[in-house]
Formats: sequence, C-alpha cells, structure tokens
Amino acid sequence: MPRARPPLVDCDIHNELSPGSLDPYLTRRWREHAATYGGRGDGGASYPKGSRNAARVDAWPPSGHLPGSDLGFMQQQLLDAHDVRFGILNCLTPANREPNPEFAAALCRAVNEWQVAEWLEKEPRLRAGIVVPFEEPELAAAEIDRAAAHPGFVQVLLLVRTDEPLGRRRYRPILEAAVRNGLPVGIHFGGGRGPVTGTGWPSFYIEDHTAMAQAFQAQVTSLVIEGVFERLPQLRVVLIEGGFGWLPSLMWRMDTHWKRLRSEVPHLTKAPSEYVREHFWTTTQPIEEPPDPRQLLAVFDNLGGTGRIMFSTDYPHWDFDDPDRALQVKLSDTDRAAILGGNAMALYGLT
Amino acid sequence: MPRARPPLVDCDIHNELSPGSLDPYLTRRWREHAATYGGRGDGGASYPKGSRNAARVDAWPPSGHLPGSDLGFMQQQLLDAHDVRFGILNCLTPANREPNPEFAAALCRAVNEWQVAEWLEKEPRLRAGIVVPFEEPELAAAEIDRAAAHPGFVQVLLLVRTDEPLGRRRYRPILEAAVRNGLPVGIHFGGGRGPVTGTGWPSFYIEDHTAMAQAFQAQVTSLVIEGVFERLPQLRVVLIEGGFGWLPSLMWRMDTHWKRLRSEVPHLTKAPSEYVREHFWTTTQPIEEPPDPRQLLAVFDNLGGTGRIMFSTDYPHWDFDDPDRALQVKLSDTDRAAILGGNAMALYGLT
Repeated sequence: MPRARPPLVDCDIHNELSPGSLDPYLTRRWREHAATYGGRGDGGASYPKGSRNAARVDAWPPSGHLPGSDLGFMQQQLLDAHDVRFGILNCLTPANREPNPEFAAALCRAVNEWQVAEWLEKEPRLRAGIVVPFEEPELAAAEIDRAAAHPGFVQVLLLVRTDEPLGRRRYRPILEAAVRNGLPVGIHFGGGRGPVTGTGWPSFYIEDHTAMAQAFQAQVTSLVIEGVFERLPQLRVVLIEGGFGWLPSLMWRMDTHWKRLRSEVPHLTKAPSEYVREHFWTTTQPIEEPPDPRQLLAVFDNLGGTGRIMFSTDYPHWDFDDPDRALQVKLSDTDRAAILGGNAMALYGLT
Repeated sequence: MPRARPPLVDCDIHNELSPGSLDPYLTRRWREHAATYGGRGDGGASYPKGSRNAARVDAWPPSGHLPGSDLGFMQQQLLDAHDVRFGILNCLTPANREPNPEFAAALCRAVNEWQVAEWLEKEPRLRAGIVVPFEEPELAAAEIDRAAAHPGFVQVLLLVRTDEPLGRRRYRPILEAAVRNGLPVGIHFGGGRGPVTGTGWPSFYIEDHTAMAQAFQAQVTSLVIEGVFERLPQLRVVLIEGGFGWLPSLMWRMDTHWKRLRSEVPHLTKAPSEYVREHFWTTTQPIEEPPDPRQLLAVFDNLGGTGRIMFSTDYPHWDFDDPDRALQVKLSDTDRAAILGGNAMALYGLT
C-alpha cells in the first residue's frame, strides 16, 4: 500500500495562450490592433503588422517563404518591375545584437557568407552591407577585414540604436576597419536596449518610429563632436531610413553651441555643420514630407544640395516607397538622376 | 600590560581631495576644462562653468550671493537695464526631483511660498512658474491647486527629461490641474535620470545640450500622439529653452507616419501638426541660428507664423540672449512686437 500522501500544492504551473485564444475577449478594434501592430513588448519599436518582417501584403512569395527571402521573387517584384540598376541589401537580423560575443561573431559571419553564396554570387545587380557584432568592436572589425575581400560588400551595416553613441572610443575599431577597407558605414533604423527617447519609453509604435530620428540626431552629434572625422578624414557615413528633415536644424544647433562651447572640444577644427556636409549621406525612405514640396528644396539647400541624398525603397517592408511615386518635388533632371542613382553609384563605386 | 594586539587592517578609509588638490597634476588645458565645464558625472547635462548655477561672469551680485538670488541686483541688471515689462521666473531647483515624495512636495511648496514672499510680492513686474514634484503627479496636482490661488503664478513648471513621456497617463493629473486652474504648462530644459539619448550617454556637454532638443521632440510627440489635447482641449504647453528649429521636420514626420499608421491612434481626430500649431508655444533662447536668417523665417512659416514664439533671455545664465542683439532676422514691426512681448502677454494674461 502506498503511503497516504499529504495534500499536494503545485506552486508553479503555466497556462498557455494559443493563437486566437483572446479573440472572443477582445473587441474588434483591439483584435485588429493586435493583427496590425502586435504587442510592442519591452523593446518598443518593431515594425507593425505583427509579422516577423513587417512586409507589404503582396511581398509574400508564392514559394511560401518569408518576404525578402526569395531571390527569384525579389528579382521579379523589385529589380525587374522597377528597373533597378543596383540594389544595396541591408540584412536585418538579430545576429548583430546577440549578447554572447563569440556566438554573435559566428552568426554575423554566417549571415555574410550566406549573403555571398545566396545573393551576391547569384545576382549581379545586388550589393550588400557587412553585418557585424557592433557591440563587440574588435570582433566586428575582424569580420569587416574578412568579409570586405568580396567585392559585393559595399558598406558596413550598423543599427542606429547602439548601446553608446557611435563616436565613443569603444566603437573606433569598427570605423577604422571601414576606412581601412574603403567602405562607408551605413547606420540603419533599429536596434536598442535602452529607452528610445531621453524621457523614457512612449506608448505607441508611431512614437517609436518618430523617436528613431532622434537616435539618428544623437549619432550624427556624437560622430561629429567626438572628432571622429579629424582622426578618420576618409570616413563616410550613410544614414539609412532615418529621414533627414531634422538635419538642417541639428546643424544650426550644433554650430550655435559650438561658437560658445568650442573650448570643450578643441579637437574640432571647423564648425560641426561642415563635418556633416562632408561626411554624411542619407537615404530617402521615409522622407518627412512637408506640406509644401518647396520646403524639401530648402532642406536640400541646407545640406549643400542633393549630392548626398540617395533613393531607397525599403523593400519589402510595409512603408515601401515606389520610385515612380516618391519624391513629389520639382527637381532638375540632373538632381533627380543624382538622387535616384548617381549619388549611390559614386559613393558605393557601382559600375 | 595591555594584551598584544594582532596586526590591524582597516579596510575602509577615505582620503578626500581638497579644492585644487589635483591642479599640480593636471595640464593647463584640463585645469581650464575643470574650471569651465566641471565634471559631468552620471547625470550628464549640467550647465558648464563649474558653478552651481552657471552664471554670466557679471551676474554675481555685489552682495556676494549667488547669481539670480538677489532681487535688487536682478531688478537693476535685467529688469531696469533692458526695460523688461514682465519677467517669468522659472526657478531651477532639485526640489522637483527629490526622490522622497513627501519631502519633494514639502520642498516644492516651500519654494513656491518663497517665490511669493521674496519675489512676486516685492516686484510687480515678475510672475512665476509653480514648481511641482512632477514624478508624483497627485502631489503635484495638489500643489498646483494650492499655489494657483496667487495671481503671480502664471504657469506650471516642469522639466523636459521626465522619467516617462509626459503624454503617458501617469502625468495626466498635472495637466488636468493646469487646465483646471487656467495655467499653461511650461516644459523647461533639464532633468533626467536615464540616458539623454536613445543611444546612451554621450561624452561632451555640448552633446548633452544638443540632445536636450531631442527630449523636447519626444515630449511634443507624446503629448500629441497620446491624444492629450483631445481630452484637454484647453491645454497650452510652452517649450522653454529647447529651441524650435526642429519643430517643422517633427511635424512633417508625425504627419507622414500618421497617414499610414492612424489606425493605431484612432483617438486623434486630425493630423499631428494641427495639434502642434494649436497647443504649443516656444521661447526663443537658445535659437538654433541658421547661417541665413531667412531660413528662420521659413521655420516661422511652418509653425503658422510668429504668434507662438516668445522672447526669453535665460538670465542669469552663461548663454543669456540680449534682447537688443538676439533675433537677427528681418521681421515686420508687428511680428517683432509679438515675439518680444505681445505673445507672452496674451498667453500669460499679463496686464
């Protein structure tokens, strides 16, 4: 006979929601919200639409694979349909933010080898950014030195929400490796472990998305004020998916402060705005569209012209810019050609 | 005979630096840096010049008291010398960020009673902001209800770097109390316990100062996107010492995103930029000075004119704007009068 057991209490049991479990308990509005925006979680910003990669509805390939994962479909839907001469792949992956440094380096190397084998070697119109474990700059620099040997890699890809501002010395090995290999550094929307704003976490996705432009402002400020371009005069930086409407007033603000505070930063030999004009490029999507397109021309004027503005679609994401419909502003043929292709061909050496 | 004592090890002794102790060990450059900018510490932004209140060199009164602490000297150096009709006191004090909630409330109440007795009752040209423990909104609202009975208080004073964005519901009692008492909410440069940027802490004071504009952007975004102005249509917000050159591109960006993401924020009944134009005022110091003053006029145009721009000096701080030398831009007499005084008289009800 088994011994009589005393009453049992299990103090840790997990009930699990299945997909759709909550549907009967949510109003239609919140069901739609969940399907469209998903939960935002601790980390705030993720693309909406609840999908792993936030795609245009029509970007799911017939193969059933994820949007952006099927080269044949991308060739057809993007490269051929829009007559794209060259396209720069910026692979978004958690590999570059994996906290285990050696694993992060192995993952990034694998991503880059996969990019060579599955994309660059198969499609001559494509180029790519080197994915690096950017919070481990020595490992990142080693991966840049390794991967840059392949001519398909035309920039080093970082995310804008690094743990510290990119001008800080800890990141210098990445910037030095980029210069050593003749590559621009591309800083793309995303990343981040701390709050997205200087006043903590906001409530809405639209705020995360808006705040990301502030992280770009912080990076431009850091790279300029730290004197990075004095040490690395050949460094070129591309701001990707961060907009640029905010750039003129940032230049004014830095210059205004610098006039009074230059003794704090004696390593700067000229006004902050001059470093911006000489060392930064930006992509177009998403443009902060002013109500009057002429205001966009004023922004270009402040940036010293259109020579550093480069068109981008953000394919296959939901906020794709169609090259035939974006840029609703009157431009000379020369300026339009430069933005649509010439500037990128010059920067990335595309021929 | 005392017992022989075993060898003693004191494992906690503190050696203390005196003022100037390190001078012999620092080069002249860093001695000057320390005297001018001081250490920046964990919290980043503080006014430079190493002094407790970052004053103009000539703002130390003959009384030997701190700059800004001597009414008679302020009357002479600011109000009389520059023929100031009305002046709004925004008292900067750690009282509103004291972590002990009850102590914070007691300190803020004391600051406000001191402002009444020592400033408002003694000088009819002065008005003041109500200092409140803003991270404890219920206590802050109670202080607003108490202090607002004195006609010398014309706004509620917050700092821009709150723990969470101000549109979040936790701060609603403050905003409601301001509206209930017919007072605008002034959001001033400063504050903050988390990193000043979405990419962590920068290295330099000039970066902290530049980044503060990003915190203002986050607050404008939060107040608009949370729908605060739908719930409190009479709420008026003044952005103080944050600049405003960044405001047009923020409006463009919010509007651009809102067109595609409005289902996330169905509580908004119009474009984000419309809330900005209706509910926000800004002060002038420090203006992000564009190289061409006409660019400043373009900023005004984007804001719907000059009707919400209000002059400020930031007396007695180091970056004081002289009313006879600031605003180097061609304005109509009407616009100049509005910025220099008319707008503030209308907003704050000054007669």
